[in-house]
Amino acid sequence: MASTSTVRGPAVPTATSRAVHRPLGIEDVVLTGGPFGRWQAINREVSIPLGLRQLEKAGNLDNLRLTAGQADVEFRGPRFSDSDVYKQLEAVAWELGRAPSKELATFVDEVGALLLAAQREDGYLNSYYQVVAPDRQYAELAHSHEMYCAGHLFQAAVALARVGHGEAVQRVARRFADHLVQVFLEGGNPGIDGHPEVETALVELYRVTGERSYLALAEKLVNERGKGTITGGGRGTHYLQDHLPVREADTHVGHAVRALYLEAGIVDVYLETGDESLLECSIRRWEDMVATKTYLTGAVGSRHSLESFGDRYELPPDRAYAETCASIASIHWNWRLLLATGHGRYADLIERTLYNAFAASTSQDGTRFFYVNPLQRRHDHLEGDDPGRRHEWFSCACCPPNIMRLVASLGHYVATVRPERDELFLHQFIPGRIRADLSTGEIRLAVSTDYPWAGTVTVTVDAAPDGEWTLALRAPGWSPTIGLAVDGSPMEAAPDDQGYLRLRRRWTPGERVTVELDMTPRLVYPHQRIDAVRGAVAVERGPLVYCFEQVDQAPGVDVEDLALADGDTRLVTEEAELPGVGRTVVVRADAYTVAQPRNGFPYSTTPPEALAHATPTTAVAVPYFQWDNRDGGPMRVWLPRHRRST
Amino acid sequence: MASTSTVRGPAVPTATSRAVHRPLGIEDVVLTGGPFGRWQAINREVSIPLGLRQLEKAGNLDNLRLTAGQADVEFRGPRFSDSDVYKQLEAVAWELGRAPSKELATFVDEVGALLLAAQREDGYLNSYYQVVAPDRQYAELAHSHEMYCAGHLFQAAVALARVGHGEAVQRVARRFADHLVQVFLEGGNPGIDGHPEVETALVELYRVTGERSYLALAEKLVNERGKGTITGGGRGTHYLQDHLPVREADTHVGHAVRALYLEAGIVDVYLETGDESLLECSIRRWEDMVATKTYLTGAVGSRHSLESFGDRYELPPDRAYAETCASIASIHWNWRLLLATGHGRYADLIERTLYNAFAASTSQDGTRFFYVNPLQRRHDHLEGDDPGRRHEWFSCACCPPNIMRLVASLGHYVATVRPERDELFLHQFIPGRIRADLSTGEIRLAVSTDYPWAGTVTVTVDAAPDGEWTLALRAPGWSPTIGLAVDGSPMEAAPDDQGYLRLRRRWTPGERVTVELDMTPRLVYPHQRIDAVRGAVAVERGPLVYCFEQVDQAPGVDVEDLALADGDTRLVTEEAELPGVGRTVVVRADAYTVAQPRNGFPYSTTPPEALAHATPTTAVAVPYFQWDNRDGGPMRVWLPRHRRST
Repeated sequence: MASTSTVRGPAVPTATSRAVHRPLGIEDVVLTGGPFGRWQAINREVSIPLGLRQLEKAGNLDNLRLTAGQADVEFRGPRFSDSDVYKQLEAVAWELGRAPSKELATFVDEVGALLLAAQREDGYLNSYYQVVAPDRQYAELAHSHEMYCAGHLFQAAVALARVGHGEAVQRVARRFADHLVQVFLEGGNPGIDGHPEVETALVELYRVTGERSYLALAEKLVNERGKGTITGGGRGTHYLQDHLPVREADTHVGHAVRALYLEAGIVDVYLETGDESLLECSIRRWEDMVATKTYLTGAVGSRHSLESFGDRYELPPDRAYAETCASIASIHWNWRLLLATGHGRYADLIERTLYNAFAASTSQDGTRFFYVNPLQRRHDHLEGDDPGRRHEWFSCACCPPNIMRLVASLGHYVATVRPERDELFLHQFIPGRIRADLSTGEIRLAVSTDYPWAGTVTVTVDAAPDGEWTLALRAPGWSPTIGLAVDGSPMEAAPDDQGYLRLRRRWTPGERVTVELDMTPRLVYPHQRIDAVRGAVAVERGPLVYCFEQVDQAPGVDVEDLALADGDTRLVTEEAELPGVGRTVVVRADAYTVAQPRNGFPYSTTPPEALAHATPTTAVAVPYFQWDNRDGGPMRVWLPRHRRST
Repeated sequence: MASTSTVRGPAVPTATSRAVHRPLGIEDVVLTGGPFGRWQAINREVSIPLGLRQLEKAGNLDNLRLTAGQADVEFRGPRFSDSDVYKQLEAVAWELGRAPSKELATFVDEVGALLLAAQREDGYLNSYYQVVAPDRQYAELAHSHEMYCAGHLFQAAVALARVGHGEAVQRVARRFADHLVQVFLEGGNPGIDGHPEVETALVELYRVTGERSYLALAEKLVNERGKGTITGGGRGTHYLQDHLPVREADTHVGHAVRALYLEAGIVDVYLETGDESLLECSIRRWEDMVATKTYLTGAVGSRHSLESFGDRYELPPDRAYAETCASIASIHWNWRLLLATGHGRYADLIERTLYNAFAASTSQDGTRFFYVNPLQRRHDHLEGDDPGRRHEWFSCACCPPNIMRLVASLGHYVATVRPERDELFLHQFIPGRIRADLSTGEIRLAVSTDYPWAGTVTVTVDAAPDGEWTLALRAPGWSPTIGLAVDGSPMEAAPDDQGYLRLRRRWTPGERVTVELDMTPRLVYPHQRIDAVRGAVAVERGPLVYCFEQVDQAPGVDVEDLALADGDTRLVTEEAELPGVGRTVVVRADAYTVAQPRNGFPYSTTPPEALAHATPTTAVAVPYFQWDNRDGGPMRVWLPRHRRST
């Protein structure tokens, strides 16, 4: 596979695409610290090795060996078992792109050989359908995940191609892609996979191979979806986003991960074909989702049942499904919208999702993962037999390797360029080094910051070409005021209409740009239509959503009785080092415990404020992403507002 | 089967049982009017014929014919297909008890012959396991529903025995019960059905047959449950109530219908064995359920996922599962607790559940049914592909025949006696005639009332024995004041500690007792721990919970923006006849539309009261049980409280 681009990252539009912004590679943006730098290290040292062990333990690799005739075992796990191998492979690819590793390179080679041996003569590859149900190949696409698995194989192959590894995997991927083209594009098969994923993957495969039939197949799959043709599966057409053609649907329904993987594919097809109607419909749904179906943490997917989006404004904090994979899919989609439009609102949502919904998915030591990310956990919580804590692995293990591939490639999402205008955009504030080529020459920046704990971000120009160029810094929507200085001299800091502070000038190496974001903790209120948190308030600071865990409260204070003092709450921050959590900044808030007797039927003609007894206290909050690292006690993001009676 | 009791009703403890109250038969309590009298007529004329047609259409009867070797068809529907036939049979039995019907008697005879032909030599009977999976008989009890189906067969047979029909069905039931005793009591099989139901049914079968091994098997199944032995099924131990022995569990978890059918069995076993520890644990869970897991409508089951109870105080109105069968199971359980203790709180909850959660299950014309009974429906609501309206039938059709058997036997739940104390208790206020035998002689009463539309209930003594006896009338917990008069002379109306107004005297035929309940509409507030409806208020009148449907509001008023004027809401009632709904009493309330612009991310540092614009309006409510009889628009039971800004 001869990559047509030299950028090493997971979404790299071609030179002829409609991308307004151009991404940088993971070797061009090196994270050196902060929570995400730390997480990348733990991801490589702890999580990925754990993932490799689990692929053996859970049977995913054995399933492929069985398919290759190399093992005498029973098929184990779900029918999309192969996809976990591919996502893990992609995570390993990005790690190999960041730094060499004999062990990781060996894994790639071994899996490559295994895939070559397992792949059928005609290019088809799927351990479940080759071994368990050979007669049902392509016969139950609504739930077969055959193209879904193929998509993850393609993404792994693309990643390996971009970092110069895994020739065998790349070969397998191309053969499978050619087979799909033969069957679903050139052949008469009108089939569409019930689980989108292959669409964005095919576009990426086109980007590294230049093979236009891959793009054509992606385009066909996007255009033909929504006509009610994906029959079967038993969960209806909305679940599969097959209820309306993509250009007609104006709100997200059904399985959240499917909906957002599809959106990534839609924007990818737009980027490479220039079909504006695709970008338009995707933005229309983005605006609807953000306004009516998104949690404060950036998470989406309100329902456990069918792992789906809910109705508009149906956003229960306790029953939030908020699947980790949906947060990842949201980041993929938002990233493509950012490349397509250059608008900072997509980077804003990426930040919110990264620092909250996504970051909460993994324990601080990198060994346990959330599949579901609620904003509240009550006493004695149970979901079936599960008390709702993180797990090392899952019978449906889609999330952990998905987390690993995103963390390994995080540098990709930090900055972009518009080379022809000589502009560099910094979207995320993570300590590290950035290198980019503009038309005037090479730029090197160093970002130094204690973000998200502190609001000062310093960007030092380490190398700059002679000519004028623009350094554009995202002005986060959450910061009411922003200070800006160059080498200590204050500058006017007015974001442009896309949300960026632009500094266009001739830069000299050594010059320092300082951004001061307002890290004062703030109270945040929900729209009145969000019934589930009516009359409640949350605490945020910087990009972080906070939460109240039982373990941090004063003795005798029950988190489920906590209310914030309305109108006059003081919020006080304090640096802390908490066991299990590590470094953090806690927020203390003036609050009450509002205890109402439990006395039979919990509905009364007397209002609760007349039945409950309020006692002043102080409520203690920690960043949401750090929750559940100590015990399994109650947690709340939203607290009721309590007005002191006069 | 020789019934040991002459009482014709669905739960009739033996003479030696611990029952404090004794039930009356369905021929002793004849409903002549009101919504439930009307419903009984529609149930017989419309719903039951519809059910009989559906048993043919959906394949339930064909499955039995297939089993009997009388049809060459494929098995259709769920593995518990037979249970729908049995529930329908029970409904038909009670109808035959109320009035003869050649058509219904023929159905009973035909199904009896069919069951005799389908039943295996050894007494086993289950169309799915005889035809589809004969090798898995009793091998997958966690989800097989084999004993569950047997239980419904037994209840049908008991009903038929009590009304003097269905000799064949009774024979089949006894043979199957003897088989179960042989396998699970005398044989070494430690199996327990994942879905409770057979426990209460076995006790009932013991009651009509006197066969003590049936009671012994029920006792064993209750005692052995909760030891984690019901392996398999894939939904865990809580789902099946197999996580803790019944005497140790103190809150309801898992599948709501299973949990409450089990409770009915637990109280039935207590009633016949006198094991106080069973009654104690059941009451403990009742108090917990009522205080923390019950909806305003009496419904239970907060989660779509696993059709289960939620955590304590997890009571979302929009996502309420509130399965119709769970309301029915709750009524069964509460009735047994009432018989066991004589406490009016159980009759209070039966009333709340009957008039709201249960009554809402069926369209006013008797042709469509709710499986799920939420307390809120938003715009464009979808559950998968389903817009959340009533259906004529379901692929899992447990609810409609369950509704029909309860409606057909409703008279049973109206009154009880304590013959040895010469007391008659009137629990529900439905126009009709009541006949009972006390030790002093026969009593005949006529109940005349326009309840629940009006609060006057007149009980006329039509026949009375010479001696003193007590007429006890339930004092509903919702009525702040109660007037009481005998032949127009006011009496002191102080309920006893079990919630009954007792009038002990020598009664003369023609004497009239009048009860005046306070039908002033009232505002009802939730306990502060119920997050999902914090800051909201509901309207009740008499036993009825009200709801706000879009179709009744003024032009331009969106139900989702409605808020009730806090502190000074006037509630005005008006009799009405609404198309599709029929006779009703609407309530008009001072309200506001509180419209907040939809403007991007729905969380803000500005409180919603500063962003929303409130406009005075009048909100119109109809009884909840009458909702969804016009269109599929939005509905809310709970409205936010809006305080006029000063």
